Amino acid sequence: MAEPGTPRYPTALGASDRTSITLLGHDLARDVMGNVGFGELAYWLATQRCPTPGQTRVFEAVLAALADHGFTPTAIVTRLTYLSAPDSLQGALAAGLLGGGSRFLGVTEDAGKFLHDVLSGVDGPLPADEQGWDRIALETVTARRAAGQFVPGLGHPVHKDGDPRTPRLMEIARAEGLFGPHLSLFAAIGRVHPRVLGKTLPLNGAGVCGAALADLDLPVELLRGFALLARTAGLIGQLAEELRHPVADDIYRLVDRNNESVPPDPSPTEPDTHGGRHG
Amino acid sequence: MAEPGTPRYPTALGASDRTSITLLGHDLARDVMGNVGFGELAYWLATQRCPTPGQTRVFEAVLAALADHGFTPTAIVTRLTYLSAPDSLQGALAAGLLGGGSRFLGVTEDAGKFLHDVLSGVDGPLPADEQGWDRIALETVTARRAAGQFVPGLGHPVHKDGDPRTPRLMEIARAEGLFGPHLSLFAAIGRVHPRVLGKTLPLNGAGVCGAALADLDLPVELLRGFALLARTAGLIGQLAEELRHPVADDIYRLVDRNNESVPPDPSPTEPDTHGGRHG
Amino acid sequence: MAEPGTPRYPTALGASDRTSITLLGHDLARDVMGNVGFGELAYWLATQRCPTPGQTRVFEAVLAALADHGFTPTAIVTRLTYLSAPDSLQGALAAGLLGGGSRFLGVTEDAGKFLHDVLSGVDGPLPADEQGWDRIALETVTARRAAGQFVPGLGHPVHKDGDPRTPRLMEIARAEGLFGPHLSLFAAIGRVHPRVLGKTLPLNGAGVCGAALADLDLPVELLRGFALLARTAGLIGQLAEELRHPVADDIYRLVDRNNESVPPDPSPTEPDTHGGRHG
Amino acid sequence: MAEPGTPRYPTALGASDRTSITLLGHDLARDVMGNVGFGELAYWLATQRCPTPGQTRVFEAVLAALADHGFTPTAIVTRLTYLSAPDSLQGALAAGLLGGGSRFLGVTEDAGKFLHDVLSGVDGPLPADEQGWDRIALETVTARRAAGQFVPGLGHPVHKDGDPRTPRLMEIARAEGLFGPHLSLFAAIGRVHPRVLGKTLPLNGAGVCGAALADLDLPVELLRGFALLARTAGLIGQLAEELRHPVADDIYRLVDRNNESVPPDPSPTEPDTHGGRHG
Repeated sequence: MAEPGTPRYPTALGASDRTSITLLGHDLARDVMGNVGFGELAYWLATQRCPTPGQTRVFEAVLAALADHGFTPTAIVTRLTYLSAPDSLQGALAAGLLGGGSRFLGVTEDAGKFLHDVLSGVDGPLPADEQGWDRIALETVTARRAAGQFVPGLGHPVHKDGDPRTPRLMEIARAEGLFGPHLSLFAAIGRVHPRVLGKTLPLNGAGVCGAALADLDLPVELLRGFALLARTAGLIGQLAEELRHPVADDIYRLVDRNNESVPPDPSPTEPDTHGGRHG
Repeated sequence: MAEPGTPRYPTALGASDRTSITLLGHDLARDVMGNVGFGELAYWLATQRCPTPGQTRVFEAVLAALADHGFTPTAIVTRLTYLSAPDSLQGALAAGLLGGGSRFLGVTEDAGKFLHDVLSGVDGPLPADEQGWDRIALETVTARRAAGQFVPGLGHPVHKDGDPRTPRLMEIARAEGLFGPHLSLFAAIGRVHPRVLGKTLPLNGAGVCGAALADLDLPVELLRGFALLARTAGLIGQLAEELRHPVADDIYRLVDRNNESVPPDPSPTEPDTHGGRHG
Repeated sequence: MAEPGTPRYPTALGASDRTSITLLGHDLARDVMGNVGFGELAYWLATQRCPTPGQTRVFEAVLAALADHGFTPTAIVTRLTYLSAPDSLQGALAAGLLGGGSRFLGVTEDAGKFLHDVLSGVDGPLPADEQGWDRIALETVTARRAAGQFVPGLGHPVHKDGDPRTPRLMEIARAEGLFGPHLSLFAAIGRVHPRVLGKTLPLNGAGVCGAALADLDLPVELLRGFALLARTAGLIGQLAEELRHPVADDIYRLVDRNNESVPPDPSPTEPDTHGGRHG
Repeated sequence: MAEPGTPRYPTALGASDRTSITLLGHDLARDVMGNVGFGELAYWLATQRCPTPGQTRVFEAVLAALADHGFTPTAIVTRLTYLSAPDSLQGALAAGLLGGGSRFLGVTEDAGKFLHDVLSGVDGPLPADEQGWDRIALETVTARRAAGQFVPGLGHPVHKDGDPRTPRLMEIARAEGLFGPHLSLFAAIGRVHPRVLGKTLPLNGAGVCGAALADLDLPVELLRGFALLARTAGLIGQLAEELRHPVADDIYRLVDRNNESVPPDPSPTEPDTHGGRHG
């Protein structure tokens, strides 16, 4: 139905006509509905490839690991936004997802990209044993340290003795034969970093999730998206709980009640840092 | 660790301490990761109830039905936002979800709430057979017509002869013993409305999804949230495709290139409609 | 430069070619920059009409009245989102604006629309004196009361003896000859409602802002937009203060530290309210 | 009213009690409403400093320069989101602002930060004449070129012979005695870059706006915020026009009608680029 002079917009995703609906080339009603799980579908949509049962299991284990962490800023934001604008559920979810940036949910993507970049720089074949991975990990951690950069996925403010999600996800990936180069390098970093940093840090859950997603051949540019997908389910849970056991109004009132009115603090305090005036 | 004078913020969702992480009272790493599918988890988070396999299957069928519909406004918005701000994946997803309002994704919630309200108003026991449901459906459609209101879930701009998702979802729900009162009433509306409206309209997919979600005992206030969860997976698919086969820049340029600069049209054209000046 | 078969997209807003940029039919660089204030421009963009100095003054008084209210949910949300995703300033502002819904910023629009609807229903000429306005106000408040509906713009949780913004904005509008029918009706409601409700409530600031905006002939469907514009400036102020005197992390940690892990509370507690199972 | 054990949340922004409302230490109703313009207020909120008339004029000239550029992705996104979710004006505005990222509105911030960083690295006093500025500019452009980095604010896809906003904003800043070091360096870059790059590029409007905002001593971390504030006014204009002369549905239908259903393109096409499997 294209018109002359107009561009075409190709897509392999949803399409429909008067009598049928297809998704990724399959009949949505007959082949997808009732047959394809939601995690499986999300993977399929992102790669246009139907995952194996093992890939689905690892992928869903990652989504479970990232779905909810209690009263994170994103959870508080979604609850407060719903309190303020109950007429727009999509606004409350969108507001919560907007907190999925560099500091919190971003670690998953940062770790996956970091490992991916290191692997992309490896000359020749990838290692076949732990010694080989330890060598690369040692170079990598040493280089980061020298550059004054931390290693994404290393360290956790609470789980100082180890993040329980990390060994579990590695176990699942290994059981499914999906313990690939990203997880191998990440595990090696866990083994060798004390030699370089002089202290032992835990491999955190967000980091191992990034490594596992990268080993699933999911696009590294979109790893943050899977953390956001998991979090969407978590935020709906937060709203469902807020509806029955509300806390947002208490949080708002506590902050508002404890506000301390102070005199203005004109900025900049040191105008010179911004450069003075001249014409 | 509460302090005197500060409120407590109860939650049954994610919690963690130095050595463990729990979700809904279960050990996240040991009991949830690797054992719970993502659709199952999303249902669980929303109801704090682990769904049966049948509930999970119907729920995931609904999510599949709503995940992606091709170049909808939400899909175009997500692609354009990513084009404009590639540094913020969360912004592109959030922008797309913000289109999940009354006109598009909202139908699922509207239909579910509508059916729920009708059922809440039924005196005595619910019907046990189609005749009984047809009677309620007939009263309902007649009342809506008299009030000049349309029936949520009835009619579709493209699938005029029937939305293929509707019979399929009903089939799945029936097979799982989850064809409850909301679906029963919705099906009855499909049978009786021609008698009242004088024409036959299809029961649309968004409507049947709302009915099925309500029969799954999911909170009716949040039905839109499940459509948004499904759409989040679809929007990630849109972005994954945009990364490899971009169309957003073409869309933007086509619109920009075909803009027609016209003279200002001062508003209001009829100032009196807003009331004139006096004081 | 249109192509055959493609629609045209008319706009009187920004347009540019190789050598010039126009906005609303004016040369942006020569005629707008340096000559048009921001409040004036915002009004102009919304109405495609250059406001009078008096209209600009009332409009900017409304924006000042709505710009910031301290630690509202929207302010807290913007600060928390910036804490969580400092890489996306647009995300922090957007998240805050998403709280601008029915419960908080929405009152401005609700009041303006409500007054507009009452005025639209008046037969014959609008009143020329207070007695006339009081008569309409009395009917209106009585009708709302009978319908069990409250009157938008009436009442305030803090300013129980009167919102200082209300007399001030009325004074400014009167001084500028812009005290139109919406403000006249709103003032009358303030005079007569005690006779109907049996108690005296303040006319709140959000309400008077809605009345004033409607008297400025701004589109009633967009009144909420002006509250959001004002709030955008306020949220930038919140972020600027957060950068120099952060509180978001304290707020997050207080909530997180005082979370109380409780057992799941499966929903629905009374399955029957959602209707039971049957086939 | 603080409670023992709870933190205080200091703020100099909005505060209120039963009888008064203050903003930045001033009585909102008496001192701000009716006396302070919106541009002036936005500057004040961001710096906690009342701007001079000259600072306000330059600031508002920047806001005018950035308010609207016709059918940009952000404008299209806001119109499409409103089409899809007309029940949430805040969602349509938020969605549009989410496009204010690195590629479009971000240039203002990038240019301001870039100039700020160069100035921060200058040893001793800043230059007092054009020759001095040219020297720094020459070093800067040469260094960027050597590093394979482009210079923020240099070049424009449409205004190849010069962006009309640039000389105009410089003229206004000079007239107000606010042509500071950032604008001086930016102007010098415009003079010297052809010697280094071998071609003459225009200094674009977004870049000069960033330089001017930095010379106004506004926080460089928030420069993008002012572009977003300007754009909020522009997006309200886009919605006001959409309400009276809609184009969003045409845009959506054109894209949807010209979609081309193609077979899935499984990713990755070259699995090896992500590394193969091994255990």
